[in-house]
Amino acid sequence: MMRRKIAGQVSLEDLARICPIISRRGHPEFEECRQLEVEVAGVRFGAGVPVVIAGPCAVESEQQTMDLARSVRAAGADMLRGGAYKPRTSPHDFQGLGLDGLKILRAASDETGLPLVTEVMDVRLVGLVAEYADMLQIGSRNMQNYPLLVEAGRSGKPVLLKRGMAASLCEWLGAAEYIANEGNLKIVLCERGIKTHAASEYSRYLLDLNVIQAAHEETFLPIIVDPSHATGVAAAVESAGRAAIEFGSDGLIIEVSNYGVEAGVPRPLCDADQAISPATLRRIVAFIRNREGTSEAAAAATIAGVSGPNR
Amino acid sequence: MMRRKIAGQVSLEDLARICPIISRRGHPEFEECRQLEVEVAGVRFGAGVPVVIAGPCAVESEQQTMDLARSVRAAGADMLRGGAYKPRTSPHDFQGLGLDGLKILRAASDETGLPLVTEVMDVRLVGLVAEYADMLQIGSRNMQNYPLLVEAGRSGKPVLLKRGMAASLCEWLGAAEYIANEGNLKIVLCERGIKTHAASEYSRYLLDLNVIQAAHEETFLPIIVDPSHATGVAAAVESAGRAAIEFGSDGLIIEVSNYGVEAGVPRPLCDADQAISPATLRRIVAFIRNREGTSEAAAAATIAGVSGPNR
Amino acid sequence: MMRRKIAGQVSLEDLARICPIISRRGHPEFEECRQLEVEVAGVRFGAGVPVVIAGPCAVESEQQTMDLARSVRAAGADMLRGGAYKPRTSPHDFQGLGLDGLKILRAASDETGLPLVTEVMDVRLVGLVAEYADMLQIGSRNMQNYPLLVEAGRSGKPVLLKRGMAASLCEWLGAAEYIANEGNLKIVLCERGIKTHAASEYSRYLLDLNVIQAAHEETFLPIIVDPSHATGVAAAVESAGRAAIEFGSDGLIIEVSNYGVEAGVPRPLCDADQAISPATLRRIVAFIRNREGTSEAAAAATIAGVSGPNR
Amino acid sequence: MMRRKIAGQVSLEDLARICPIISRRGHPEFEECRQLEVEVAGVRFGAGVPVVIAGPCAVESEQQTMDLARSVRAAGADMLRGGAYKPRTSPHDFQGLGLDGLKILRAASDETGLPLVTEVMDVRLVGLVAEYADMLQIGSRNMQNYPLLVEAGRSGKPVLLKRGMAASLCEWLGAAEYIANEGNLKIVLCERGIKTHAASEYSRYLLDLNVIQAAHEETFLPIIVDPSHATGVAAAVESAGRAAIEFGSDGLIIEVSNYGVEAGVPRPLCDADQAISPATLRRIVAFIRNREGTSEAAAAATIAGVSGPNR
Repeated sequence: MMRRKIAGQVSLEDLARICPIISRRGHPEFEECRQLEVEVAGVRFGAGVPVVIAGPCAVESEQQTMDLARSVRAAGADMLRGGAYKPRTSPHDFQGLGLDGLKILRAASDETGLPLVTEVMDVRLVGLVAEYADMLQIGSRNMQNYPLLVEAGRSGKPVLLKRGMAASLCEWLGAAEYIANEGNLKIVLCERGIKTHAASEYSRYLLDLNVIQAAHEETFLPIIVDPSHATGVAAAVESAGRAAIEFGSDGLIIEVSNYGVEAGVPRPLCDADQAISPATLRRIVAFIRNREGTSEAAAAATIAGVSGPNR
Repeated sequence: MMRRKIAGQVSLEDLARICPIISRRGHPEFEECRQLEVEVAGVRFGAGVPVVIAGPCAVESEQQTMDLARSVRAAGADMLRGGAYKPRTSPHDFQGLGLDGLKILRAASDETGLPLVTEVMDVRLVGLVAEYADMLQIGSRNMQNYPLLVEAGRSGKPVLLKRGMAASLCEWLGAAEYIANEGNLKIVLCERGIKTHAASEYSRYLLDLNVIQAAHEETFLPIIVDPSHATGVAAAVESAGRAAIEFGSDGLIIEVSNYGVEAGVPRPLCDADQAISPATLRRIVAFIRNREGTSEAAAAATIAGVSGPNR
Repeated sequence: MMRRKIAGQVSLEDLARICPIISRRGHPEFEECRQLEVEVAGVRFGAGVPVVIAGPCAVESEQQTMDLARSVRAAGADMLRGGAYKPRTSPHDFQGLGLDGLKILRAASDETGLPLVTEVMDVRLVGLVAEYADMLQIGSRNMQNYPLLVEAGRSGKPVLLKRGMAASLCEWLGAAEYIANEGNLKIVLCERGIKTHAASEYSRYLLDLNVIQAAHEETFLPIIVDPSHATGVAAAVESAGRAAIEFGSDGLIIEVSNYGVEAGVPRPLCDADQAISPATLRRIVAFIRNREGTSEAAAAATIAGVSGPNR
Repeated sequence: MMRRKIAGQVSLEDLARICPIISRRGHPEFEECRQLEVEVAGVRFGAGVPVVIAGPCAVESEQQTMDLARSVRAAGADMLRGGAYKPRTSPHDFQGLGLDGLKILRAASDETGLPLVTEVMDVRLVGLVAEYADMLQIGSRNMQNYPLLVEAGRSGKPVLLKRGMAASLCEWLGAAEYIANEGNLKIVLCERGIKTHAASEYSRYLLDLNVIQAAHEETFLPIIVDPSHATGVAAAVESAGRAAIEFGSDGLIIEVSNYGVEAGVPRPLCDADQAISPATLRRIVAFIRNREGTSEAAAAATIAGVSGPNR
């Protein structure tokens, strides 16, 4: 009897074919190097010190964004995040301020000196968003929106590529290859939790930390973690962020709000339950800074980044 | 102690808010009607008789497409499928023939009289694809590509909306609402298998037949099944198609090839292992036609479409 | 760089090592035979005609069980099911009537002539349950309770081995091998739905029909389907049962209740929402009987059981 | 139209009914206390300092076990682990040394002073294993083997209850309630990774760290993590262990081997690819010890254990 053959099955063994540009497989010369450094307006991903990106889920007003940008800078963040175009489950939900939001974010970035990453969902708006942002974010829902990946690649801008909520590592690196194939290697991967049978009972998604090391083994691109979406629970974000660093993550992207901290700040329109306070952000930054000085951290970072005979 | 709140959690209870246009919830008047009929160039989805769409995975040449279109018409299919723009895991894989493919498909549709459905991935090409196709397909990878959904809605064309490979029913109906929100109710849902821990050991995805009834309960839109992607195994497609019909599916969309059937036909470039022969397609069509005549089938169809006290 | 090795990973390729007794791999002589027939007190699994097992979830009283046994016999079922020992999520839930339940079931089986299958959870009770039952059921929660499997094997009784709710096919066949290794080949597999991210939104588990063919390819043991647990929704059981038959299932095991059908019958203590009425059971049996007479059914059964070049 | 009801669905809201003994719900008096301390021969779980359990996967010989017990004591572990009865996917795999293994483990425990935890799979052997072990382990495959849970409860011994590989938190706490219901509250939970669509591409299971906090919120029982099975990859164990500590885990249970470290040590028969060296274990212990002294760690531990308005 002949055994079944299954269409479309791929494994890590196929990466040399799927993504020859960004895969370490078939590139003995990449084996030597730790990983690529991706620079965004002076901030460097993959340079050994984790990068912290923080800001609101969505831009809701100039004041909210300006205040929060100052707060996250004061807390020690390296970059500013915030959504002007929001992918929402329902068309009747708040969709973001669009161009007005971009302008507010640019102003907040300029005032604080924090480089800006913001999401682009529409291939027709890549040029516009690239005018305002220092780094383009491709969201989880659009990880396999290939025309968008191609245009983001052509823009020449650094790209933050979130993992699809059910994407395999092969599919994710295949998506990154679409950007790289346009001559743009300024790509940072971002794990943000996946769908599983367990998620939804006590968390939004399931944070997959195992993928960090696997990504480091398979590609030279940096990889960061979004503990906000991965948990969906504000009280879990600090632990998730610290855990990601222990796994060798090259950075974190975190949603922050002053709601409940400063008088008069309204509850966020999106994902309020996963936003942490600036004070918690400050503790996460301190954890990273303190950890960098220790020799154990250095040893751990080495281990996290390299598998092999070393046990 | 306060319990955790989780950002972004939704359930079927939220459908009246997420998709007020297409949800039955909050619309007592929809409770009466079985479901909406969606007409595509004379072919009617949701009218009681399952619709069979068949054709190649991708257009590879004029002759391959013409021959296959004739074969699937001879086998009794109602509509023609085929990809001119192919979403592929790697940018180095065959990406489809593009506009040339659209022209070939149009000619094949015209000659056979089978209305054409084909995928559009790029929001900038919705107008172009709408010129050639009778129905626009939004693929699984783009289920939450909201600008694409909006443009497809505005095109006024019927839309076949595949389920994302990890989408909940809420997310899927939320995506359909983006199309409906543009005044276009000509939407047909398509289940095509989801990702699970079991899939990949012996199938490509896991065919989720339970969702058919749940979709029928929650919306008046028709829903069909793609047994080709749901299994990824040619030898499983017939069973999967029959099973879908038993679950009340309003139709099937199936990949077919003459490879190995007619001399000189090359192996398909995409998903060859899931393509069935025209002879197998003919058996599936015969199953549907024979079944329609029986009273048991009618009884089963009623049960499949309506839950409630009837057990 | 060395690639990671993962402990404990197995694939279908390993079946010749995992389960040399029941795997077709490495046994060219098994390739010829369709599959093993397993006989239970005159009822034959794997003989071409699907077997229907039906009865209450749990034995709650003599009258309930007797009445229901007569109802399912009248509806055309081949065997009787019912639980005397119930595995429940909480120790505070109804745990079954134990030995009293066994006696009631035996009497119901004797009166109706329907052979009895009932679950055994405790390795110390295998002998006792084997005195009363014609077939021992190993439930999903105990699929990897190896001492229980060994004792069930040693009992010499036919065993119905349900799939673990997250078991791979390799793990499932490995569990069956524990029974076979005691010299007992009277094993019938039973798919009953698996856990996925989709299940729980609109169904209890996700019915995995793809596994039927894969199991038929890999082992000569018969495989049946439990549409009651796989859906958890009474209105879905008939469709799920018919779909399983279309996929080549060697039988069905179904939960039935007279609640709401006959006056005075109390609501079942366990899983009431998935119990169908005897009238629905009768339709399922009729579907199977009618189908068996048709040549299409025979053709489909052949296809469902054998993969390979036939497309 | 009536909406579907699904049998057997439970959520965290049901915990007061499922597990009234161990759930915090409905017990305002438990809200005050951080959690229960479970003492095992002088080692205390839930007392603020994470407990480290280490040792071989399986006992293979007296010398292997003695040497390794000394190694893990020297590395700073608090308790010894090791399997005398091994649940294996195939009956043809090494099943453990049984009683001989228990005797070797007892001797190793006595010599090193490290309390012993070992798995019991067979309800008939609970008494025997309890004679030799300081703590009984219920493995993932037996999490819902209720007779085994009851006997473990009756033994009066502390119990380490691993999470089923697809168990929800409700199901897991329901299982713990079976032990508690026998008057035995000496229960420690153990997360060990779950099955998902992602696992198997680059790890054995998917480590679910989110569950630690949720468990802390819902019950007063301590919870530890098994980073060995959760990853299946030796090079990932240290990161996973550190990450678990950052999430507030009350301890770790880790598989260790001297294979490749000391001359002449044979490769482990089980799960060799996930065993770390004693040197790596020492680093993990040092991480825990160093961390305990810092005020940040204390702050983080507080946050990890308590959700609520604190963000």
